[in-house]
Amino acid sequence: MLTLYRQRKKSIREEVGEMIVVMVNGAKEEQIDDVVRRVENAGLQAHVSRGMEQTLIGVVGDKRNYPEVLSLEVMPGVEKIIPILQPFKMASRSFKQEDSSVKVGNLVIGGDTIHIMAGPCAVESREQLFETAWQVKEAGATILRGGAFKPRTSPYSFQGLEEEGLKLLAEAREATGLYIVTEVMDTRTVEVVNEYTDIIQIGARNMQNFVLLKEVSSVNKPVLLKRGLSATIEEWLMAAEYIMAGGNHNVIMCERGIRSFDTYTRNTLDLCAIPVVKHLSHLPVVADPSHGIGKWRFVPAMSRAAIASGADGLIIEVHVSPETAWCDGPQSLNPVKFAAMMADLRNIAKVMGKNL
Amino acid sequence: MLTLYRQRKKSIREEVGEMIVVMVNGAKEEQIDDVVRRVENAGLQAHVSRGMEQTLIGVVGDKRNYPEVLSLEVMPGVEKIIPILQPFKMASRSFKQEDSSVKVGNLVIGGDTIHIMAGPCAVESREQLFETAWQVKEAGATILRGGAFKPRTSPYSFQGLEEEGLKLLAEAREATGLYIVTEVMDTRTVEVVNEYTDIIQIGARNMQNFVLLKEVSSVNKPVLLKRGLSATIEEWLMAAEYIMAGGNHNVIMCERGIRSFDTYTRNTLDLCAIPVVKHLSHLPVVADPSHGIGKWRFVPAMSRAAIASGADGLIIEVHVSPETAWCDGPQSLNPVKFAAMMADLRNIAKVMGKNL
Amino acid sequence: MLTLYRQRKKSIREEVGEMIVVMVNGAKEEQIDDVVRRVENAGLQAHVSRGMEQTLIGVVGDKRNYPEVLSLEVMPGVEKIIPILQPFKMASRSFKQEDSSVKVGNLVIGGDTIHIMAGPCAVESREQLFETAWQVKEAGATILRGGAFKPRTSPYSFQGLEEEGLKLLAEAREATGLYIVTEVMDTRTVEVVNEYTDIIQIGARNMQNFVLLKEVSSVNKPVLLKRGLSATIEEWLMAAEYIMAGGNHNVIMCERGIRSFDTYTRNTLDLCAIPVVKHLSHLPVVADPSHGIGKWRFVPAMSRAAIASGADGLIIEVHVSPETAWCDGPQSLNPVKFAAMMADLRNIAKVMGKNL
Amino acid sequence: MLTLYRQRKKSIREEVGEMIVVMVNGAKEEQIDDVVRRVENAGLQAHVSRGMEQTLIGVVGDKRNYPEVLSLEVMPGVEKIIPILQPFKMASRSFKQEDSSVKVGNLVIGGDTIHIMAGPCAVESREQLFETAWQVKEAGATILRGGAFKPRTSPYSFQGLEEEGLKLLAEAREATGLYIVTEVMDTRTVEVVNEYTDIIQIGARNMQNFVLLKEVSSVNKPVLLKRGLSATIEEWLMAAEYIMAGGNHNVIMCERGIRSFDTYTRNTLDLCAIPVVKHLSHLPVVADPSHGIGKWRFVPAMSRAAIASGADGLIIEVHVSPETAWCDGPQSLNPVKFAAMMADLRNIAKVMGKNL
Repeated sequence: MLTLYRQRKKSIREEVGEMIVVMVNGAKEEQIDDVVRRVENAGLQAHVSRGMEQTLIGVVGDKRNYPEVLSLEVMPGVEKIIPILQPFKMASRSFKQEDSSVKVGNLVIGGDTIHIMAGPCAVESREQLFETAWQVKEAGATILRGGAFKPRTSPYSFQGLEEEGLKLLAEAREATGLYIVTEVMDTRTVEVVNEYTDIIQIGARNMQNFVLLKEVSSVNKPVLLKRGLSATIEEWLMAAEYIMAGGNHNVIMCERGIRSFDTYTRNTLDLCAIPVVKHLSHLPVVADPSHGIGKWRFVPAMSRAAIASGADGLIIEVHVSPETAWCDGPQSLNPVKFAAMMADLRNIAKVMGKNL
Repeated sequence: MLTLYRQRKKSIREEVGEMIVVMVNGAKEEQIDDVVRRVENAGLQAHVSRGMEQTLIGVVGDKRNYPEVLSLEVMPGVEKIIPILQPFKMASRSFKQEDSSVKVGNLVIGGDTIHIMAGPCAVESREQLFETAWQVKEAGATILRGGAFKPRTSPYSFQGLEEEGLKLLAEAREATGLYIVTEVMDTRTVEVVNEYTDIIQIGARNMQNFVLLKEVSSVNKPVLLKRGLSATIEEWLMAAEYIMAGGNHNVIMCERGIRSFDTYTRNTLDLCAIPVVKHLSHLPVVADPSHGIGKWRFVPAMSRAAIASGADGLIIEVHVSPETAWCDGPQSLNPVKFAAMMADLRNIAKVMGKNL
Repeated sequence: MLTLYRQRKKSIREEVGEMIVVMVNGAKEEQIDDVVRRVENAGLQAHVSRGMEQTLIGVVGDKRNYPEVLSLEVMPGVEKIIPILQPFKMASRSFKQEDSSVKVGNLVIGGDTIHIMAGPCAVESREQLFETAWQVKEAGATILRGGAFKPRTSPYSFQGLEEEGLKLLAEAREATGLYIVTEVMDTRTVEVVNEYTDIIQIGARNMQNFVLLKEVSSVNKPVLLKRGLSATIEEWLMAAEYIMAGGNHNVIMCERGIRSFDTYTRNTLDLCAIPVVKHLSHLPVVADPSHGIGKWRFVPAMSRAAIASGADGLIIEVHVSPETAWCDGPQSLNPVKFAAMMADLRNIAKVMGKNL
Repeated sequence: MLTLYRQRKKSIREEVGEMIVVMVNGAKEEQIDDVVRRVENAGLQAHVSRGMEQTLIGVVGDKRNYPEVLSLEVMPGVEKIIPILQPFKMASRSFKQEDSSVKVGNLVIGGDTIHIMAGPCAVESREQLFETAWQVKEAGATILRGGAFKPRTSPYSFQGLEEEGLKLLAEAREATGLYIVTEVMDTRTVEVVNEYTDIIQIGARNMQNFVLLKEVSSVNKPVLLKRGLSATIEEWLMAAEYIMAGGNHNVIMCERGIRSFDTYTRNTLDLCAIPVVKHLSHLPVVADPSHGIGKWRFVPAMSRAAIASGADGLIIEVHVSPETAWCDGPQSLNPVKFAAMMADLRNIAKVMGKNL
């Protein structure tokens, strides 16, 4: 057991930092003493500060010892514990002050150029993929999106062409020169997806699939990390931290809409997340207005807004024939509408001092 | 009672329109017959459509009779009722296809010019108000905001200077030529607020204060209608409908952030609402990025995004000294930051084909 | 202006208590000094605590001076401010340790007996009201609910019989001996509603209608305070504080379902709120399962659960003929189902050591 | 490609059923004709129903053809598509009318006996596990919970003892006779977890980890399926459908709290979900009040409420020393409090006509 305990000590060594223990109103002196003793026994210092109503105990010291005191919220006389430090480290601005950028072939995401990833929800056939690829390239996209493994709410829905789809994506890259982004859903297919793609996508439903995060953390390939449907910004950055902690620092954050109470739109694209993540973290951030609002009609407005809010890129669903698409037709633009939108985006990018 | 019944028939005459009654899987023939009879007794027609699993009954006919059948969801064999028509009428695009604009003195909100309303959360003193007013005017704002009656979560917080505050606002208008927008919270003060202001603001917490909506519906003055913290877009448009139904068609919709699960920002500015409301309705829409994200640092990014998403204007909190403001200091810009932001917004407006 | 400033000082004198100022990682010494100076100039003490990464400044002292430092979140080098004390005072357990009970005639809400308020959503006619009243009384209810002024999402929906409805309620009380609870929506009708009713209801949409809260705070009559659709527990208790601060301590809290992302039920009855409010506050708490889940079929299960979680009472919609009800038919029980449910509830109450 | 297409046809053959196409107000005749033609070309029938404002097109026919028309929401003149049928099949009450029960050794979950699963958040050591196991058994629990693989928000937190932990669980079963429930997070460890456990737990964060759902669908072992943090009831039942569609019908649904806007509790235990799932589905449902409210103090009240709402069982965190627990200490009961709670629960169970 001792080995296990040591292992544990190591694995959790930096979870939290400074924290405040708030005692209940009217906490007894011996309760305060008990808390102080627990803190000190853990090798930490306790600063007792007696307010007019409540006593606060500030905890400082070697963070490796913090886990020892995390559970003292259950001690008699304790009302709650307030952690102060942000739990993400390598993903934070404190860790790295200047903006990070991620290289995808000869492209740079997070620099002076806004990159547009575009393509169908799912790879359906060579014809569908290639036609879409040529059209989005023509309109200015630099990266081709397309799902080969599809996370579907229903087991009876189309689940993707799998490796066949990956091969088609690779062929499309060969033909058009576009780079490829595609989703991986399973630790067992990380290797094969990595073999074909230029950017590995972690979908919203897998944002806290920690074993998958660990698996892509040991791959030397950029990761597009979609925000979970109800993930706080802190949880989303902690997911990035998983990937970075494993050695892969090439993380691109992707806001794709949160779940709210409104039913008119499929999701609620949370553009507040763009400047907030850029403030808290050095990582590049892109937006997915197609999933973010879920209706093609509103995708251009939200794309413009995303760039104006500071996004480093967009990922857009484009289908040669949205009305016959096998999935996500209602949120896909056809190539004509996509090209028209790109012209507008170029003007917004210019105002933002960027190329597109 | 008969008179009451007639009144009721009149008052509810247009609540819902076409609707679908969905029967449970395995509903009995006599249950279907009962529903059909109830529908027909109400003077409506029932179209029975038998699917492989479930029977649907479409209800059409004179909408004045729809309320009669609303409660048949409780009849045996009925699974649910799905209303099809949007419940708002005068606020809808079907009612009026072209964009509406609202005149405020010689300004037009909802036209080619984006108008910026700016000023302090609360009117605190003549000095504070006038200095802010001159500075926002200098930077390009055309309307001065400032609260005289303040809705505060705590009864112990500053509640506003009340009529004294209204007088100061009127003096500031006189001096600067800016128009005034200020909140009304009470049916009993609608008259006095109306006497001083150019735009009457209904705050987020009063969006479904129906008696207040009715009161401002009979005033001949533009109304800025903030979206409730957890109001669906449909409920927000229904609140506009209350004001329009009472005769006041000068409604300006204001998105000010919804309540979500995230705790980093004060609210989540829902920019999806901008293009959606403009699609469903002809009314002009403005955004309030100050409340919408709640931290001054992010206000410029969200202001740019709001204009890029199609907003007709913004309402921004500006304070000469945010660090000593009596309320909302953390989300207020100082005049220097406000002026810098305005320069950026002008460029975005230009791309959108608008003046600012 | 000086008088105004003094007034303000008085009005906000107890808003917050102990607080922590968190400095940004790498804050400069002079920034820390500036904050300390601001705190001390406000007549408060600052305790600086330097952590390995961030400096924390604890603020203690006379709470009347706290508002002075609330806005220092905007000072350079400050990351955020964390208030520690609960903002509600008279509603809190610290203020009064033993449970409060509210007298309604010769009934006691919040004691050994669970009281059931039952009746129709809206008063529709003498026949409907009286028949329902007799039936709910027969089944064991002690208080009759019924809306005379109705808050309706649509201006075209039935808005209530108004004073006519209040008179019918009073007649029903005369006839049956049941007490009356009915909603008030307008400061201008508080007097007339108070004249007829035994409990004044503040609806969910008016929970932060602060002028209405103040108006009922000066009435000597129990107030049933429904939780707002997206109100935090703290905001709900602050609304109670408004009523208590004005002198009316007879507040009954009513959980009626919050707005969530799920669409199957009308609302999500948040039973967690029952034990939490009873922990934070001494006020009695009742539940409204009819609005809370919004479908009659599930009302008995949620009623049992509410009592098992510790609720002091329930408010239930009962209609003699739910399928023809003018409002809320789908969530109303008919008298037979209501009586059957009451038998079950009596058994749960007994296990909880209470009468019903 | 043809083979792929056929495969796809097969895989999606039952996704949706009856549906309604709602045309925009003022849709042109040729737009209606185009939709009808698309529906008929897909081998389905279209029933056109012209309302006073909008035309509705009901779609019926062989569900295998429905996917063909799903994307016609993007056709000109179409406002939206409303699917009518529930998308889950094997999990639904229509598929199986009587309640299902799941056998775990000689226990039956979903029958006349309420089963309590109890134990620590994480297996920490033999001593901790065994002592807790004996104590919860003594108090009446029949199943031991304990995490060997832990999903942690932070990569720096304790991640579980892994196979070492599974072995300890198996030893504890051997010693105490309690059955075991433990979480699996990775498709690659399903085999080893299955080897040791009696019930496989799918955690909230993996509810839509579709590859993991598929993997446990081919295992012959009961699955405890926790609801995702922001999963609708329909999505949760669709996750059950994934497991059932793969051949494993032994699914136990577990409500564990949803994410809401409130910050006082860790999650919001949604007890509405208990009667609703029992209405829509035949599967047994248990509740997890420990995660559901997140503070030990409130666990007994929510446990009572869960049973009163109809839950078939509970899963409760118990730790011999919550204040030193390696995870979830604040929501864990100590054995004394757990035993006291069990006495109360027995009384509630009796009222519900069940044993415990």
